[in-house]
This record gives sequence, C-alpha cells and structure tokens, in this order.
Amino acid sequence: MAQKDFTITKVMTKKPKPDDQELEFGKHFTDHMFVMDYHIDKGWYDGRIIPYQPITLDPASMIFHYGQTVFEGLKAYSTSKGDVQLFRPDENIHRLNRSNERMCIPTIDFDLAMEAIKQLVSVDKDWVPKAKGTSLYIRPYIIATEPYLGVAPSKQYKFIIILSPVGAYYKEGINPVKIAVENEYIRAVEGGTGEAKTAGNYAGSLIAQEKVADDGYAQVLWLDGHEKRYIEEVGSMNVFFKINGEVITPALNGSILPGVTRKSVIDLLKSWDIPVTERRISLDEIKEAHQKGQLEEAFGSGTAAVISPIGELAFNQVHMVINDMKTGDVSKRLYDTMTQIQYGDIEDPFDWTIRV
Amino acid sequence: MAQKDFTITKVMTKKPKPDDQELEFGKHFTDHMFVMDYHIDKGWYDGRIIPYQPITLDPASMIFHYGQTVFEGLKAYSTSKGDVQLFRPDENIHRLNRSNERMCIPTIDFDLAMEAIKQLVSVDKDWVPKAKGTSLYIRPYIIATEPYLGVAPSKQYKFIIILSPVGAYYKEGINPVKIAVENEYIRAVEGGTGEAKTAGNYAGSLIAQEKVADDGYAQVLWLDGHEKRYIEEVGSMNVFFKINGEVITPALNGSILPGVTRKSVIDLLKSWDIPVTERRISLDEIKEAHQKGQLEEAFGSGTAAVISPIGELAFNQVHMVINDMKTGDVSKRLYDTMTQIQYGDIEDPFDWTIRV
Repeated sequence: MAQKDFTITKVMTKKPKPDDQELEFGKHFTDHMFVMDYHIDKGWYDGRIIPYQPITLDPASMIFHYGQTVFEGLKAYSTSKGDVQLFRPDENIHRLNRSNERMCIPTIDFDLAMEAIKQLVSVDKDWVPKAKGTSLYIRPYIIATEPYLGVAPSKQYKFIIILSPVGAYYKEGINPVKIAVENEYIRAVEGGTGEAKTAGNYAGSLIAQEKVADDGYAQVLWLDGHEKRYIEEVGSMNVFFKINGEVITPALNGSILPGVTRKSVIDLLKSWDIPVTERRISLDEIKEAHQKGQLEEAFGSGTAAVISPIGELAFNQVHMVINDMKTGDVSKRLYDTMTQIQYGDIEDPFDWTIRV
Repeated sequence: MAQKDFTITKVMTKKPKPDDQELEFGKHFTDHMFVMDYHIDKGWYDGRIIPYQPITLDPASMIFHYGQTVFEGLKAYSTSKGDVQLFRPDENIHRLNRSNERMCIPTIDFDLAMEAIKQLVSVDKDWVPKAKGTSLYIRPYIIATEPYLGVAPSKQYKFIIILSPVGAYYKEGINPVKIAVENEYIRAVEGGTGEAKTAGNYAGSLIAQEKVADDGYAQVLWLDGHEKRYIEEVGSMNVFFKINGEVITPALNGSILPGVTRKSVIDLLKSWDIPVTERRISLDEIKEAHQKGQLEEAFGSGTAAVISPIGELAFNQVHMVINDMKTGDVSKRLYDTMTQIQYGDIEDPFDWTIRV
C-alpha cells in the first residue's frame, strides 16, 4: 500500500566526520536526509533519500506564518557488538501521528515512517558515533509548505528526517541540576497543544528559560495553566518525584507531552516492583514532603539526558535541596538500566530495541 | 544609526497581475520582497529589496523545529486621489517588537521597519489593486534560521516582508456570520503566547475551526483557558458585544491579541460618545443579555474583514440569533467609517493613515 521503495541518491564525497569526543548536541549533520512530499490530491509521495541539502521554500509557505508543524526525537546507538539499534521508534511514530491529528496534518503510514528511519540510518550508519555515551540523534519533522496566507490547514507538506551525531549528555558523570519553579509563564494548558510535539510549545517556553539561566538554573519546572498549582514538566522533560518510597509523575492530562522515556521509566519501575503512580501532584505536596524529609529523589526524563536528577528546586526565596544534591539510587538505577538497554550492554527484556 | 540605505534589485520582467475582480486572500504575491538578516555578532544587517524568490534554509534551521517566529499583517490602500496609503503601520511595528520580546527574538529599529515597509510598497506600487474593497496585504515576519537542534533562542534570523494583492472581503456586501462557541480547545492562556502574533497560536487553533466548519460556522468563539467562562476572541479576530447601548470588548489580559482594528474601533466609538468598555465578559453574561433582549450587536474586528458582524452564536444546542441575522447600526457605522478612512474617502481626524 504505502510506498517503501524509496529512491536513494548518495553523496559523491562524504563530509569529514567530527571527533566522537568533541560532539555537542544538534550541531553536526550527516551526509544524507530523507524527504517525502504531500499534496492534498496525491497523499504522501516521492519518499527519497538524498544528500543533506538546503530546503527551498516560497516565502509565503505556511510554516513561516502559522507554524503548522510537528517533530520527533529519537536515537540510534552503536552497540558493543558493532550493531546499530533504535530505542522504541514505534512509540515515536505513533506519537508523531497523534501530534499530526492535533495539528491537522495528514498522518503517515506507520510502516513507511519506520522504513524511512531505518533506511536513512542504514545509509549513514558510519555516522553513528562509538565513544561512550554518544549516539545518533534522529529528527523526523513535518512542515506545511503551501504558499498561502489564509489561516487554514495547508494542502502541501514535507516530511523530512535529518540525523545528527551527538555527544555524551553527561561528560563527567550524571550530575544533579538546579531547577527554578516558573510562576509567570505557562508552557501549555488543557485544550491547547501541550501534548503534541509541535514547534509553538518550544518557542513559547524560551523566555522562561532565559529568565532563570543567569541565576544558575538549568531548567524551569512548569506548573499547570489553570491554577499554577500542579506540576507539569521540567524544561522539555517529563518529571518524577520519589516521596516516601513511591515514585509519582504527573498524569497525562492533555497538556503534558507523553514522553517515550517517561513511559519506559514507568515500565522499568513496575518491573522492579517499585511503587509508581501517575496522578496530579501539586507544588504544595512537594514542599510538604520536603519539609517532612520524605522527598527522597526528583528527576527529569527525556531522550537527550535519559534521566536528569534534580538536586535543588527553587521557588521564590525557598531552596529545596533534594538528596544532598546527589543522584538518588532509583535515578541511578533507571539511568544505568536504560542506557545499558539502549547500548545493548544488557538483555532487553521488553523488546524496546530494534536492530537497523 | 540603523541602516536605511537598502539595496534595491528590481526584477527584469514583471509578473502578469491578476484581475482586481478575481483576487482572493493571500494567493498572489508581488514582484519584490524585503529581506534583512540578523546574526548575534552583527545585529540586523543587509536590508535589501530583491525580486520575490524562494528562501533557501538548512533543514536544521530552528524555524522548522521550535517555531521561533513572529509576524504582522497590515494593508496598503489605493485612494480615489490615486495615492497609496498605509493604515496605522506604527501600531503594527510596535506590536511586532512586543511579539519579538515575548518570543526572545531581537527587536527591530522602528524607523528601519517603517522604511522597509514604505520602500517595498513603493517599489511594487503598481500592485496595489484599485477595485472597490481591494487592497495590498503586507506581511512582515521574522524566522529563526540558525541550523541547531538545541532548545534555545536562535543566534540568526531573517526579517522578511512580502506583499499580496487581496480581494474585497465582502464581495456581496457586509454579511453577518454564524459563530460556534468552542468548549474543548483553547487558543491561549495567560502566561502563554496569546498576546504575541506568533505562529503557534494559529497552528493550535486550526482543529477547532475544522470541527465546526462542516456545520456551517465561519469561526469559533474562544473562551479563556482557566475556566472556559470568559470571552477571548473570535477566530483570529477580536470581538465586541453591544449590550443595552454599551459596547463591551474583553480587556487585554495577556492571552488576547491587541488588535490594531480593535484599538481603532475603541477610538472611533469614544469619538462618537458611544459607551465602550474593556473588561472581562463571560459567556453567561452574553446569554443573559440575549434572553433579556439586550444583546443588540456582536462583531469581530481584524485587518482582513475590518468588521465582521456575528448573526448567530451557537453553544451546545442553544442558538442565539443576534439582531435578526442583520448587520447592526454600530457595526455598519464602524465598518463604513474605518474603510472610508482607509481608502481616503473621508478626512482622517486621527492621523491614522500614512502616504507611501
């Protein structure tokens, strides 16, 4: 049904590759990219792997004006056996299509998207870095390309995948960060676009990040848009709190991004018989737990950092130090297990990884 | 201080112009465009008028991923005297810069932006259509262009202005529309990006529009993101209600776009000694006024339609017909006066218009 016989045009000369040890996040790009077009009269067509190259668009293209776009982020890992494997790409493809539905963008056939990711990574396999902690970041995205200034869903789109070799997130070992509670700006509200992975959510969040960066905070903790009482996310990660032996994360209420790492954390905790609950949790509850000495750990979860321990949570003049600014046992175990599965260092009992 | 000696490169061959009578909105574009670049080390530089042409961007450009972008919309009008004039462009430039601040985009010198708009319109003066109700739509916008996948403000931008001759909004006379109250999706919430003119607000609103279009509704009426009780906007316009002789519009609370037409409506009403109030107004209050027979008029205001009378407001199974589906006297007077000022048919006592 769906086109999977992509045409492949390879580069004549490969780019020099950056040193695995010098890699940053999202600055280097591989030799090839995947592009597929959509027209309302034709559906998705002309999937192709081509040399990495600029995109040429009419200045009236709707992406530049009304932001109709979705994206995904996942990684390919070099295993010690010399294989390359993906971590839960099926989850990303399903989420891409859920985001598409929210943003009125035509969905993409699951198998076709999976094949596009696999074939592109395969063509650029020698770009998957091998140094400890490094990986190949995969960025699928869709943009509205119709040249039209009316506010309406676009009749034309491009689905693009680019690849970026990225460095170890923790170059000097996993390291707890300071987080400031954001009480002015709002990331998302129920009925908005918070649960879709779409550009506007990120553009709107920059100002809060800027506000606290000078004071040494790595990220902000987002509160709900209704009452500014309940915890939503931390920076662009999901967030977990371990209180009195129970791990709690905000339930997916419509304004929270359903993270793939979030889901994997919950699955792992359940498999270890550590109590884990998805529910509404207020900042007051966190404060109270901290006062009682029951706030044992806090951490963010996301594709980039996997697990990012929170060592301090600041709100107004209150600074709550968590676990003496040290990485907690559960955070550490989650990080270790998740990365060992991702890099193929241990058995994958969940069938999360897919060989390319 | 700011560069105003733009280089101008004119087309060799002008495009054929569409028939003034056949014009739609935002589908045709003129012969030239304005482009200016920004780099964090250089500021805004190289402002230039060039032939209308595609933009070429790296596929990692931040606009495609994190939606850091703002835009404006204003119009140039052909007057009966043969002049071309702009309507309150100063308001648009000030708002562009307020949007820039919210979206962490570097602001643009006021005089430079004004000069860019004037010079571009002047170069494409023969594109300003002359048929009744037609105009030249001006779309300034800024996009983040740095090729980087980190979530942070871009270090590079492009400021672009394109022009589009547009047809009369009301081809068969001003015509009241049916509006559906939206009770599932939310356009914006205080602390979000609602008061900035940025892409994400529009992308997020498409789904609500799609939902009601099949049932014959032209737009949705947006309620507040906190309680879904208070009126915010209608479609992509501001909204006014005339209740018992008083005209009421939602106060600018942080989630409502501060419309230039909205401001002009308020100014005109004040000049006519018609009571006008900016305050919070609930859907319940509208319903009650309707029941009492005191909801005399309702209308949207925006650059495209100027005034768009609301003939019916639907909520669940309730259909409130307003003024027998006819354009109200105040709506009509506002539309007539505003358009007469825009087209130079009457004296402009407010100094709103600027000759190009």
